[in-house]
Amino acid sequence: MNLVATPASLSTASSTFDAEFKARLHWSADTDAGIEQRVADILADVQQRGDAAVLDYTARFDGLSASAVAELELTQAELKAAFEGLPDVQRHALESAAQRVRSYHEAQKKASGESWSYHDEDGTLLGQKVTPLDRVGIYVPGGKAAYPSSVLMNAIPAHVAGVGEIIMVVPTPKGEKNMLVLAAAYVAGVTRAFTIGGAQAVAALAYGTATVPKVDKITGPGNAYVASAKKRVFGVVGIDMIAGPSEILVLADGSTPPDWVAMDLFSQAEHDELAQSILLCPDAAYIDQVQASINRLLPDMPRREIIAKSLTDRGALILTRHMEEACDIANRIAPEHLEVSSRDPHRWEPLLKHAGAIFLGAFTSESLGDYCAGPNHVLPTSGTARFSSPLGVYDFQKRSSLIEVSEAGAQTLGQIASVLAHGEGLQAHARAAEMRLK
Amino acid sequence: MNLVATPASLSTASSTFDAEFKARLHWSADTDAGIEQRVADILADVQQRGDAAVLDYTARFDGLSASAVAELELTQAELKAAFEGLPDVQRHALESAAQRVRSYHEAQKKASGESWSYHDEDGTLLGQKVTPLDRVGIYVPGGKAAYPSSVLMNAIPAHVAGVGEIIMVVPTPKGEKNMLVLAAAYVAGVTRAFTIGGAQAVAALAYGTATVPKVDKITGPGNAYVASAKKRVFGVVGIDMIAGPSEILVLADGSTPPDWVAMDLFSQAEHDELAQSILLCPDAAYIDQVQASINRLLPDMPRREIIAKSLTDRGALILTRHMEEACDIANRIAPEHLEVSSRDPHRWEPLLKHAGAIFLGAFTSESLGDYCAGPNHVLPTSGTARFSSPLGVYDFQKRSSLIEVSEAGAQTLGQIASVLAHGEGLQAHARAAEMRLK
Repeated sequence: MNLVATPASLSTASSTFDAEFKARLHWSADTDAGIEQRVADILADVQQRGDAAVLDYTARFDGLSASAVAELELTQAELKAAFEGLPDVQRHALESAAQRVRSYHEAQKKASGESWSYHDEDGTLLGQKVTPLDRVGIYVPGGKAAYPSSVLMNAIPAHVAGVGEIIMVVPTPKGEKNMLVLAAAYVAGVTRAFTIGGAQAVAALAYGTATVPKVDKITGPGNAYVASAKKRVFGVVGIDMIAGPSEILVLADGSTPPDWVAMDLFSQAEHDELAQSILLCPDAAYIDQVQASINRLLPDMPRREIIAKSLTDRGALILTRHMEEACDIANRIAPEHLEVSSRDPHRWEPLLKHAGAIFLGAFTSESLGDYCAGPNHVLPTSGTARFSSPLGVYDFQKRSSLIEVSEAGAQTLGQIASVLAHGEGLQAHARAAEMRLK
Repeated sequence: MNLVATPASLSTASSTFDAEFKARLHWSADTDAGIEQRVADILADVQQRGDAAVLDYTARFDGLSASAVAELELTQAELKAAFEGLPDVQRHALESAAQRVRSYHEAQKKASGESWSYHDEDGTLLGQKVTPLDRVGIYVPGGKAAYPSSVLMNAIPAHVAGVGEIIMVVPTPKGEKNMLVLAAAYVAGVTRAFTIGGAQAVAALAYGTATVPKVDKITGPGNAYVASAKKRVFGVVGIDMIAGPSEILVLADGSTPPDWVAMDLFSQAEHDELAQSILLCPDAAYIDQVQASINRLLPDMPRREIIAKSLTDRGALILTRHMEEACDIANRIAPEHLEVSSRDPHRWEPLLKHAGAIFLGAFTSESLGDYCAGPNHVLPTSGTARFSSPLGVYDFQKRSSLIEVSEAGAQTLGQIASVLAHGEGLQAHARAAEMRLK
């Protein structure tokens, strides 16, 4: 066989670097107008006809017929049976991963998700009360990209936040269920689960039907239809980020075995032909070694065709002048996954501003983070790490400001509010403040 | 004059309560298809033609002509002059309000916006690094609803978060500038300001033009065009919530002077005919007193026509069986502003789950919170408090997960990751984990 994976070979010293780099990074989040229209129609139909519409689309798109949506609900007994039917080693791995993910998110809640308040010098109470969402929906893709780890990563932070009900939807094309996904739902404490998917599942969660309960927020990845539907129901319910193709950026100083780095690039590329794997390194000889590792390791990979296409079409090995420049470029990319494969990762970490997750040191392969290190693997893609964060406990909480103005406080604040309210032409606001003055 | 304000009079004991209550609450966030299409066209045009398109739309919609966008930039000297030209009392009020808003948001940052990390038993480092956004855009409405307080409420949390550049846009129809808005931009530390508005300003911030810098996130309220534009650029940049009409819910036990409550209802109603003011109270006689206060106070209000229409069309005085039931209904509404006008507000506060801001006790009029108590006045509307939060420092920060797996940790984690990756059919993920095993 003659399969080759040839990532673009770039150098920051080249005069054409900026243009080549930009072209490589380009990926458009635009959905096409056809999808947008079909999704709008499906949403309107589910909003109007409820269960009946969900059944129609599930029969049409998933080849799964049922006479009532209740037949598409998975019972807790089924989820439990799926878990108990797994081989010991898988059951243990799922439980260990869940335990680590839970610990991390408990630490996250403690660090940034608790209510707080204080009194000012006038005795006025100010603060914020943090409360969990009542009910959330988790979208889990079915078919070829059915990832039990994603069930853990979505449901566990919701659970730790204290969400009352977690409703999972997962399409099962032609009725084929993934036992690991069902088992993960059991381990993660999913409240109810339905074998529905696509825009129709998003609509059912957003508007509610006779059978599917209306939720407050929908999280989880999906195809273009799911993404478009989530964007459209945003405001009716909360949503997490719209995910693009997965990406890894490896920043290497040449001290990690090249095979390790090559395999880390593969593990991103194997997801999807659109996935992006990039290496930044100031050592040209090391880059050659990584390319040699790629060539040697590729033929043994079961997903070698996807890997080869992803690396060739979207991958890059970039020679930088020095590590500082590599850090600058990392910030321009704002990658989903950023490996600092260096002997001295803490030297570079402070220079890194934008990334979904930062993996420090040679032992921290991205795949350990994907499954079981603890932090969430739902991360901002396509440069959105410039303004957004990993999925976390905070996505399943909301805050209410707390204000209790003391009588003394009302005197100070009332004067200020009155002046500003008159300045804005809002006299009732001014009068309301003035009435509290002695 | 014969102006009357007659909020709907409802009672939870009535058999028709649920239907009447639902009808009163109804408000649709749907924008019409015509607006959506025009906004899509404007965004595409600005993305393509940049400054030239911004100039065209500003001339057409705001009646403001310029030969270059640079002419529409407000200099720091202009902002400063606006501040210095204000009467002493306004200058002092603006500064005091800014100081209080800053203190509160500093406390918020300390409570929930700092980086954290820990080591697990294998010596693996886990945590999150919290960093500010590089550059944000703040939309400030112009014309009749030009609120300097909104400039403070958007810019100060960004400043406290450590955002590098804060770019304000504010339309100035026919070139008319609001000096309080300019002064507030000065006090709040806005970096650059442009007198542009509408969908074209949102587009300029989201995509960048030759003159207007591209930002990472856009916050701030606006009309239907602005809301539609923000929703459409979501993903290219971050956005805050899409705001609906403003609402207040007063939960009263009858201990607050009825005039105070009436004025608090007015201060919401005066914003806009679509604004919603609701009173929940278990005491029928007190509700009558509030209606009598409404009748007596209304004629003196300069904005009485808006108040009367808002209260009559969308307001309600609701008699409940008891305070507990009032709390339940408050949770169903999930109001933007929730006043607990009670002798014993801390008895009820724990029962309140969903609200943008909770104002405790008779002295805490909403208007004090709107201007200067400290917490943010940008709050989730239309029931979105079920899943979203006040604007805060956290909206101008993002998080990156930190993972540094120790050699020992790689042994434990590698086993788990390998099993799960094979279970998902991702062999490169498995191999990357296995390579780190001894």
